[in-house]
Parts: sequence; C-alpha cells; structure tokens
Amino acid sequence: MSTTTSLRSLNIDNINPRVKEAEYAVRGELAVISEEYRARLLNGDTNLPFDQVISANIGNPQQLDQKPITFFRQVLSLLEYPPLLEKEDVLLNQLGYKPDVIARAKWLLKTVGSVGAYSASAGAPGIKQSIATFIEGRDGFPADPKDIYLSAGASSGVNTLLHIICASPQTGVLVPIPQYPLYTASLSVLDAKCVPYYLDESKNWGTDLEAIKSAYKQAVAEDIDVRAIVIINPGNPTGASLSEEDVEAVIKFAAQEKLVVIADEVYQTNVFKGKFHSFKGALRSLQKTEPEKYANVELASLHSVSKGMVGECGHRGGYFELAGFDPLVQEQIYKFVSITLCAPVIGQCLVELMVNPPKPGEPSYELYRQEWDNIFNGLQERAHAMWEAFKDMEGVSCGKPQGSMYLFPTITVPPKAVEAAHKEGRSADEFYAHRMLKATGVCVVPGAGFGQKEDTLHIRTTFLAPGTEWIGRIKKFHNEFFEEFR
Amino acid sequence: MSTTTSLRSLNIDNINPRVKEAEYAVRGELAVISEEYRARLLNGDTNLPFDQVISANIGNPQQLDQKPITFFRQVLSLLEYPPLLEKEDVLLNQLGYKPDVIARAKWLLKTVGSVGAYSASAGAPGIKQSIATFIEGRDGFPADPKDIYLSAGASSGVNTLLHIICASPQTGVLVPIPQYPLYTASLSVLDAKCVPYYLDESKNWGTDLEAIKSAYKQAVAEDIDVRAIVIINPGNPTGASLSEEDVEAVIKFAAQEKLVVIADEVYQTNVFKGKFHSFKGALRSLQKTEPEKYANVELASLHSVSKGMVGECGHRGGYFELAGFDPLVQEQIYKFVSITLCAPVIGQCLVELMVNPPKPGEPSYELYRQEWDNIFNGLQERAHAMWEAFKDMEGVSCGKPQGSMYLFPTITVPPKAVEAAHKEGRSADEFYAHRMLKATGVCVVPGAGFGQKEDTLHIRTTFLAPGTEWIGRIKKFHNEFFEEFR
Repeated sequence: MSTTTSLRSLNIDNINPRVKEAEYAVRGELAVISEEYRARLLNGDTNLPFDQVISANIGNPQQLDQKPITFFRQVLSLLEYPPLLEKEDVLLNQLGYKPDVIARAKWLLKTVGSVGAYSASAGAPGIKQSIATFIEGRDGFPADPKDIYLSAGASSGVNTLLHIICASPQTGVLVPIPQYPLYTASLSVLDAKCVPYYLDESKNWGTDLEAIKSAYKQAVAEDIDVRAIVIINPGNPTGASLSEEDVEAVIKFAAQEKLVVIADEVYQTNVFKGKFHSFKGALRSLQKTEPEKYANVELASLHSVSKGMVGECGHRGGYFELAGFDPLVQEQIYKFVSITLCAPVIGQCLVELMVNPPKPGEPSYELYRQEWDNIFNGLQERAHAMWEAFKDMEGVSCGKPQGSMYLFPTITVPPKAVEAAHKEGRSADEFYAHRMLKATGVCVVPGAGFGQKEDTLHIRTTFLAPGTEWIGRIKKFHNEFFEEFR
Repeated sequence: MSTTTSLRSLNIDNINPRVKEAEYAVRGELAVISEEYRARLLNGDTNLPFDQVISANIGNPQQLDQKPITFFRQVLSLLEYPPLLEKEDVLLNQLGYKPDVIARAKWLLKTVGSVGAYSASAGAPGIKQSIATFIEGRDGFPADPKDIYLSAGASSGVNTLLHIICASPQTGVLVPIPQYPLYTASLSVLDAKCVPYYLDESKNWGTDLEAIKSAYKQAVAEDIDVRAIVIINPGNPTGASLSEEDVEAVIKFAAQEKLVVIADEVYQTNVFKGKFHSFKGALRSLQKTEPEKYANVELASLHSVSKGMVGECGHRGGYFELAGFDPLVQEQIYKFVSITLCAPVIGQCLVELMVNPPKPGEPSYELYRQEWDNIFNGLQERAHAMWEAFKDMEGVSCGKPQGSMYLFPTITVPPKAVEAAHKEGRSADEFYAHRMLKATGVCVVPGAGFGQKEDTLHIRTTFLAPGTEWIGRIKKFHNEFFEEFR
C-alpha cells in the first residue's frame, strides 16, 4: 500500500485528521457486515443461520414495516406531477384522492412554484408560516416564521448550528452520554470540545442536573469555553422522555450560565408515557413569569419528518426554530445555509404536511387518524414485547419504554466473554453485537457507539421490525452466548 | 445592541470566524432586496418602476420558464404514491402514463424499497449501477459503482471532498477565478487556503496553463501545501467550454504535481459549441497511452440533476465519482457521508432517471426528446439574444455563448460611476448591479462575487428567463446609467 500511497496526493495519514477522528457507529462496521449478509441472502446463499437481516441499528421505519401516511404521499404525488391536477374527476372517482388532497397540493404548488426549483435559502415562506402556526398550537405561545429554517433532516440543522457555535478548539458543547453520535462526530469534524454529561440510568435515563453542573464546572476549570448544551428529548439512544421539571431545570441552568440550548426533539410524537414537553413552550412559560431572568436565553429546537408516525427519513425534511438569538448571528446562519442553497423542496413540503395534517371533519381525516393510531399502537406494542423479552434475559436490565424508537438495555456479560472480546481487540459490547449479528442476522449498535459509563455495557436496538420472531432469535442467541462464556 | 449581546452566549464577535469570513454573493444582499421587491409587487405595490422581478442571479430553471421533463416527473409521482401502480389501466388510458414509466417506477421501488426510507450511505446500489453504466456509455471506459457517491446536489459533494482534503490551515486548493463562490466559501469555512488562478478572458475564459503553473509555484513558495485543483467545465460564471487539449493539459499538470482534480461538470449537457469533454474520459485515455505516468491521478468528477435540461435543483440530487483514490481514503469518505445518513432518496431516483432516460423506440422517447430539444434550443436562443444585446451596449464586451447557463460580460463604466460607487462603499460592479435591480427588477450578480482581475468589472446573468422584454429593460437602464455618469 505504501508505495502506491506515496504516489498520490491523499493518503490516510495526510487527510483531514478531524474527519478521521470522527466516529459514527450507527452506520459503522456492523452495518456494513449486515449489508453483506443481506446481499448474500438475496443471491440465494443458504449457508447463513438466518434467512433475513433485521436492521435494528437505525431508526429507518419504512425500511421495515411502517407504511407511509396516505394523505402525505397522495399530495406529494401531485406535487411531482402537477398535470394530474387537470384530471380531478379521475383523481376523485377512480384513484381515491380526496378533495383536501387536491386543495393542499394546489396550495403547496402556489407556495413553492415547482418542487424542482430552489426555494428561498431558509425555506419556502408559506411553509415556514405553517410551521409557526403548528408551534403556536403546540405550545400556546406565538412563533415567528423568520426564526424558522428548513433543513435536510435534523442532521443538517445540527450541522449548521454547530458550525456557528464552534469558534475555536476551546469551544465546548455539553452533550449527553449516551448520545446520538451525530453530535460527537460533528464536534470532532469542527475541532471543538465535546463536554460529556452522564444521563441517569437509575432514573430511566433522565437528565441529572448535578451531573450537568459538575461536567460544566470541570470543563470551565479546564479553560473550555462552554457555549451550548444539547438535550435529546425523547432520548436517543435511551428512549427517555423528560418531565416538565427536567426541561425547566435545564433552561434555568442555561440562563444562569449563558448557554445556547440545542433541543433535539425529533421524537416528539414518539411518547408512550406521559406527554411531550417542548423546550420552546417551557422557555416561554418561564419568560412569562420571570421575563428579566429568561429574556435572553438562546434556544434552537429541531424537528424532522424522519421519525414519529411520519417516518419519512429518506425525504430528508426537517427544520429548526431559533428563540433569543442575536439578529446579527441569525444573519450569519442565513448566509451559511444559503451556501448549500436550500433544503430539498419536496422534503419541505412533507414538513408542511406533517405540521398541518388533516383536521377532524376534513375528508382525509378518518384514514389519517386510523393510520397514525395503528403505527403508534404497533410501535408501543413492539416496544413492550421487546422489553418483556429483555426482562427474561440473564444479565440484562432495561427500563420500561417511554418514547422514541429505541431500547437501550444494560448487559452484564460473563468475564470470559470480556476476555474473548479483548483478544479480538473489541470492547465486550461490540463483541456481543458482532456475535448476535453473525448468529441471528439482527444488527444492533453497541453502547460504545453512543458513549456509556465505564464498566457498563449496553446495546441499542430499534423496535421497528414487525413480528416477534426476531426477538425470539435474539433470546436464543443470548442464552447460547451465556452458555458459551459462563 | 451591545447590552443585549453581552447577555447572550453568541454574538457577531464570538461566533465561528470562518463562517463570518465566508462570502456567497449568489444569494447575498441583492438577492434579499429582490425578494423584498417581489413581495411588494405581490402585495399590489405600484410604486416600483417595473412589474416583475427577474431572478437572473441564480441558475434556477424551474423558477423561471423551464418545465420539468414529463417522463421524470411521472415516474416520481408513482414513487411517491405506489398504490397508483395498482391502477395501471387508469394510468395508461386516462392519465397518459406510458408502460415504460410504470416499469421504471416498479424497478426503482424494488431498488430503494420506499423513497421514505434511508438508503445506504453512499446511495442505493441499483442507482449507483445505473450511473456507472451512464459513465461507461459517455466515456467509453468502465466505471465501478463502488466509486460513486450520491449527494444532495453537487454542492454537498464538493463539501464532502473539501472536508477530506483540507487537513490544516496550510492546505491549498487551486480555484479558478472567476469561480462559483461555493468553493471559496467552503474553503473559508474549513480554514484552508484558496489558491486562485485566473482564467483567460481573451480566450473566452479558457484555462491558461501558464496561469495555473504560476499560481501553484507562488503558493508552494509561500509554504502552502497545494493538494487539489478545481475545474468548472462548462464554466460558472463564465460559460466557457473547454477543449480536449485544455482538459488533458490540466490532468498532465495534476499528475506531475500530484494534485487531486475536482472536476465540477454539472453543466455537461449545456454545451452550445463543440462537445463536452469529460475529465474521466480524458484521464482514462491518457492512462491507456501512458499508464505508468497517469496511473495514480486522483480525480473526483461531479454531476447533478440541478442544471442542464433536467433543471431539477429543488430536488437536490447529484453524485460524484472517484478515480485513483486510495481505498483507505475512500473509507473515510464513506464514513463522512454516513454521518448525514444519505442523500434525499427521491433526488437519487431523479439522478437515475437523468442518467438512464427513455431510449429510441421506447414509448416515452418521442416526448422526452421533444421536451429536451425545446429546452436546449430555447436556452441557446436566449443566450444569443442576450449576447447580441450586450454587443450593442456601450462599454460592454462579452464572448460568444459556449455553454452552461450564464454570460459574464466585462463592463467598463465611466469614472464618475466608480466615484459614486466608492462613496456608497461599494465596488463599481456592485453599484451597477444595485442600480440595475432598482431600475429594472432584474437581479444579477456583480463579478466581485466570483472574483475578477483587478481593475476589471463584470456581471453574471443567467439567460433562463423567458422572452426578451427584460433584456430590453437592461439595455434601457444601461444607456441611462451611462448618460447619468458620463
């Protein structure tokens, strides 16, 4: 390799070291191997001990069982081929489109012109207005379209925000551990500091204000310029859903230490227990009671079409809303997003449909409601079935499902398994996940990919795949693994 | 402002300085003002001296006259709402869909599963195979799907490549001047060095190898680690179309100095004069004759659905192909793109349709051909009409249209105009463009936004807007401007 390498401009030792350091396990080695298994099965290979690969490593609902919502997709079909709108009778009488589908498509086309045209850099104005209306309805406080930025999924919004915030290698951002690795990967690429704070597994992965404070204090003592705190609620990978008090406590801390709050709320409709409390709503409530104290809190909240009952991650639609940001900083955010021109316009339209779905009494409402409820109930059932299975498994403990699309159980493996893992140069959770994939075709992500307290091991699994047969396969594997290494 | 600012975490003086330094004039102040004018006209304002805003600042075909290609959009409508495929008779007999539309939609759905699901990080395998087949047909040399990466438009591909290449503040990338400002903006954000080389206006903006060599030499003398050279062919903003010799000369230089070649070929079908010569084809030809000399040239070529007769920029579809890259570097590129999960899947499908359009004899071919030719001829006619207008204007000189979507005339304004511009703190071309927008509603980009030789002034205008009335408005403004400042 070295001879060839030296003849080239780029080699593994001279490319951007910050990219090299970035880790993103959700689509790492295990995912690559699982795709190889999938290809082998497709090509008729019968030498594998399973006949199906289950990608439980990534929240990709429509890759598995989840069907798109009819109303959304009917509208999108008309946006892609507007001449269909000239055949209203065929749409209505032969294809099952309802009048509100047609009306919405016409309105969206008026708003964006063509879905093949660039929109304004921060998104089509009419769509930003719909999002503002949705936020007002959700929180009971006004929202301003000028503070809303459409993005290609929430990932691209996070990328924008971190680009603005990270000014030097000493810039620090508080990130929950375990976390979705987008945050640590982006901070690596931007050469800024991740300031980890641990979530409290004993409280079903809730935020622990003392842990946040002590992480902050330690970072400041190390001369890190801590500027922001990331909260993922409902949690990824943990599945936790925060109480109103927890949300308020974070805002109070942010106000006191002048931190930007980055609220990743992409799972806001995936809540099985209690209700979702938005950071924006909590901030405005605090501002109402004590305006002088909270007037200047800077909050960026993110949402997306990728998760929830929408599950349209392939469309790469999302937005973030800013509150309390300096207008001159917002100008720089606008310029930054303009460099990549605009978020995918059909994805923007899907955001509009998500925030402004059919209402009771409208022709598409019944079906919409029914599809929504079926997906919600299905996810909840599967979450509980999986949780029940984990409860039965030796060395495994797992909190009751609360929200998002994941369970994140702790696994205590026998010492011999730890030894065997180290011989392979892997951590024990990686070793366990590799063994599981090899034995069952089920791909999960080891806790190491999200961060975990020292001497604890976890796996993250989605509960999106249909049926329970694959959960049985995991149980069987787990028992055999324990037999082997006991 | 300062009191408020100090209460916040972020202000204009402490955010990422590299973002602050980035400039992106294509959607800068003029574009913002033009949108304000557009909103005023929509609200019935009659106090403006024009009744229409023409966005000639950006290559956004479908915002103006260009209609989408029917075949593409019919397929996309089926991908968005697959239950339509259960009504083949309605599609065929009442909605004018042809059998090849249905067949393609079925094939694409088999390939991607659902357009609402994430694809593999670098794109759906079947779509990468289609792109490889297209490249083989275009160049006459094999292409490998594993070297192809789908992206959200070409912009996102450029962002990926520069992220890998830029390792330190001393990393340099040769960029043509004038250039599309994505390159300088991205290099600013990445804290790397733009090494400008001037294109030769006297040769209709062709590459000038001597200029490249001298820019390279000077940069090396300044201890800059020059690693790559960007070529935009056909040119943006210049409209130039390179000869085979020019393309080969750049590759030879890159081989000699071990530079990665970044070939931005998004306008490859917008060629009015001669033919398009791909860098990939030229590289493989050179490798055939002198393998030992060119075996290790690293080439990344980019293409997109945004331009050409496709003009689907709102869909954010594109790809880049790598040749000669170290496999370990490619692994890092794969990891980097996986952090943002995947390019929009409907955009990926549109890339597939673009590279694999209906063929002669297939049911959709006639209409496809006709639509394609109409767009092509319309663009060529408008380019020539505009060029003729520039020829008649005092102080303006402009090369004959060759390709892309732009003309980039030189304008020599009277000294009094330069003075008046400086009083406003603007360069003379910015001043001229602001005056033009105010008088005509036509938004163009001053040459300063792309870079230009000292003491020369240009504007970039697209020739996408329909009709010639607006060209007349520009002429009238220009004459009055010269009268005022003579």
